[in-house]
Amino acid sequence: MIDLVIFGATGDLTRRKLLPALYQLEAAQKLPEGLRIIGVGRKLVEPGLFREQARESLEKFEGKIDPGVWDRLSGRIGYEASDYSVESLRAMSHRLAPSVLFYLALPPDVFPTVAANLGQAGLSKENGGFRRLVIEKPFGHDLASALELQNQLLQHWSESQILRIDHYLGKETVQNVLVFRFANAWLEPLWNNLHIAQVQITVAEEIGVEGRGEFYDKVGAVRDIVQNHMMQLLTLSALEPPPKIEADLLHNEKVKVLRSIRPLSRENLVQGQYVGYLEEAGLEFSSTETFAALKLYLDNWRWKGVPFYLRTGKKLARKHTEVALQFKGPPQRLFEDTDCNPEPGWLVLEVQPQEGMHIDVEVKTPGLQLSSRRTSLRASYRSKGLGELSAYATLILDALNGDRSLFLRFDEVEWAWRVLEPVLRPVDPPELYAPGSIGPNNQFSLLEDGHRWRKLG
Amino acid sequence: MIDLVIFGATGDLTRRKLLPALYQLEAAQKLPEGLRIIGVGRKLVEPGLFREQARESLEKFEGKIDPGVWDRLSGRIGYEASDYSVESLRAMSHRLAPSVLFYLALPPDVFPTVAANLGQAGLSKENGGFRRLVIEKPFGHDLASALELQNQLLQHWSESQILRIDHYLGKETVQNVLVFRFANAWLEPLWNNLHIAQVQITVAEEIGVEGRGEFYDKVGAVRDIVQNHMMQLLTLSALEPPPKIEADLLHNEKVKVLRSIRPLSRENLVQGQYVGYLEEAGLEFSSTETFAALKLYLDNWRWKGVPFYLRTGKKLARKHTEVALQFKGPPQRLFEDTDCNPEPGWLVLEVQPQEGMHIDVEVKTPGLQLSSRRTSLRASYRSKGLGELSAYATLILDALNGDRSLFLRFDEVEWAWRVLEPVLRPVDPPELYAPGSIGPNNQFSLLEDGHRWRKLG
Repeated sequence: MIDLVIFGATGDLTRRKLLPALYQLEAAQKLPEGLRIIGVGRKLVEPGLFREQARESLEKFEGKIDPGVWDRLSGRIGYEASDYSVESLRAMSHRLAPSVLFYLALPPDVFPTVAANLGQAGLSKENGGFRRLVIEKPFGHDLASALELQNQLLQHWSESQILRIDHYLGKETVQNVLVFRFANAWLEPLWNNLHIAQVQITVAEEIGVEGRGEFYDKVGAVRDIVQNHMMQLLTLSALEPPPKIEADLLHNEKVKVLRSIRPLSRENLVQGQYVGYLEEAGLEFSSTETFAALKLYLDNWRWKGVPFYLRTGKKLARKHTEVALQFKGPPQRLFEDTDCNPEPGWLVLEVQPQEGMHIDVEVKTPGLQLSSRRTSLRASYRSKGLGELSAYATLILDALNGDRSLFLRFDEVEWAWRVLEPVLRPVDPPELYAPGSIGPNNQFSLLEDGHRWRKLG
Repeated sequence: MIDLVIFGATGDLTRRKLLPALYQLEAAQKLPEGLRIIGVGRKLVEPGLFREQARESLEKFEGKIDPGVWDRLSGRIGYEASDYSVESLRAMSHRLAPSVLFYLALPPDVFPTVAANLGQAGLSKENGGFRRLVIEKPFGHDLASALELQNQLLQHWSESQILRIDHYLGKETVQNVLVFRFANAWLEPLWNNLHIAQVQITVAEEIGVEGRGEFYDKVGAVRDIVQNHMMQLLTLSALEPPPKIEADLLHNEKVKVLRSIRPLSRENLVQGQYVGYLEEAGLEFSSTETFAALKLYLDNWRWKGVPFYLRTGKKLARKHTEVALQFKGPPQRLFEDTDCNPEPGWLVLEVQPQEGMHIDVEVKTPGLQLSSRRTSLRASYRSKGLGELSAYATLILDALNGDRSLFLRFDEVEWAWRVLEPVLRPVDPPELYAPGSIGPNNQFSLLEDGHRWRKLG
């Protein structure tokens, strides 16, 4: 018997993401038998009304609801009001199953208190079952606060009980990268500084800050995207093959990548802010970056000398996430390039909006002259067969099953902060850029060796 | 001023291949200014009638004829009757331009005589222009006859004047392979015995011997296909990068491949004959092979230990020509294979019926389990832009321009015969196979290390 206890059950995250994920798992018959889902919030709400509201949320955010699936799901759902105090949680404790997954769908500033109160109420103690705590990002806003938060958690919880979720990279994406890299033996001999000239990681958004201006202005692109999503993409792309695909072995390799990053200085970062950000966020003035580009080097055997360019921003020309590795050119040019773009080809792992990959190849230009043109070998691994399980659904299932591979171990978070610490407090105001553009001009100053940013639009 | 003199001008090759090729070149405005096309044959035909017949052939074999193009082309065309004697050729010599390309569209048994008579008539002497001789395959029917033919030719011609044509591999195909291999730097590190487990070269035909039974029965699959086309595909796929793409440098590399082939013995070859061959060829009995499969090894630094399997046949399940290289598998399996076919992937250069290439990749199977499935990265380099220049057209143009890259240098022919000499006189009768099948069962005996023939059908 397992209970999934969602703190913040009347909040936005629960309505938009967690309930749809649970519905999907119910529809796919993936929820453990006997699992109860207990919503907890400050508001006094009748369980019946809570279920009613849950159904409305599902109809809004998941679309058409199958009545049979909903019957099964709603049969699991309960609600308890709580102010998250030790007393209130202790009172709840008697009604919980031996195994409980606590999901903190709460603002980050209350994580330490709620985690501590859970501990003081005796709810972190495992006794014939598991007790796990799911925490949403952000995990701290810099190195010091992350270390502090971790210390607070560790007073009542062990690292193995804490599941730090980063839903941006769904299970499917992460595993696609791993399978592609390590199930294709022909890729590994190319995946290093002998054959790769540069790596570009892009997380481009079309949207602006929209309703999140107040929150976003305290955060900015580096904390919001680079510290977590982009560091994940970086470590996945650069890591050494682990002996097995197991959580700790994977985390070890990811941390190794982070620890190999050559210390950053201000020159490694450029920042931008889109024109219109202030009005959209309702601010008089802000030096928060909505765009960040970063150059970094991995000082390790595999990647020494290969620049990794990272780039993310809001209000850019196109929504697009990819990891792109450019090959070195042939040592000897035997053919004339007639293309306008004679630079060596790329191997691209496409993450969003669609998952797939392609490799540029040079082939002969049809006709009598002996010259080459660029084409692409393409494969799409659109997850049709997945039955529409969202990133959240697969992660909740992993959390229930105790598979920690896709959650962040603390040292990953810690080293991501350590890497970025030198660039977190910029001196200059960010350069302005036009919405719908490729970002500020200063990004070009990062590029070395005649490298060019890949096309965004 | 150049003259193209076609010996055998009323024959099948001229009508089916050469005239259409010349029409295509005329349409593409690629024929040299002032070029004359002089048909020569034993028959007495009025030039006007010859042009009339040429036009009929074009309509039959090329389709719709543009009147303007035909006007330009027919303005170049003349005809002379000749018995190819020294006297007759000497009489012709006074009417020829300084530069002449002689095209022997004649049966191979008259090559030596005609070439010698041309020499004795003084027509092989270059004097302010070029004199070149185009010879169709077959160049000999074994090593001794090839050496003899070459000796006869060399009495009046130099090697640099002789152009041995093998139209099967059109210019486009050959150059596609070269561009693909040497314009993509990422391919070269994989293209060797560290990463390739086996190579399979297939030239499969759906048709039988049809009207060619009498000719074919003296030849068989090894002489008809293996000695020329397949050896070309083999050398192109296996050769080292030359310092430049120049005829002699390319030929040197191709000969190097042939000279690295480990000497064959009878065990390296299996043969088959399709059921119905005798009736189709109108024979009582024949031990001629219509199918041949061969295993060979290149004893050189790059390919040592990698088996090259060659396979060709008539009346097989599908018309298909390809060069396929199978990668080695990952040294460590990190993922479960759920495919029915868990063997490592292939890199395939497709030659016929369409030109293109693909690489098999393992990607994640969509869904919750961490397993991989096979998909393919594909590119097609269909020569749309070529304006429908046939293989013959591009080769005739090369011959006119003196570009010898695509013609066979004698040592290529010689070494192909040397390689195959030990298997040219089989002892056992060929095994019978059903038309439309994948060929005889004995082909499987060649395979090593759990290798499997690639699917044909």
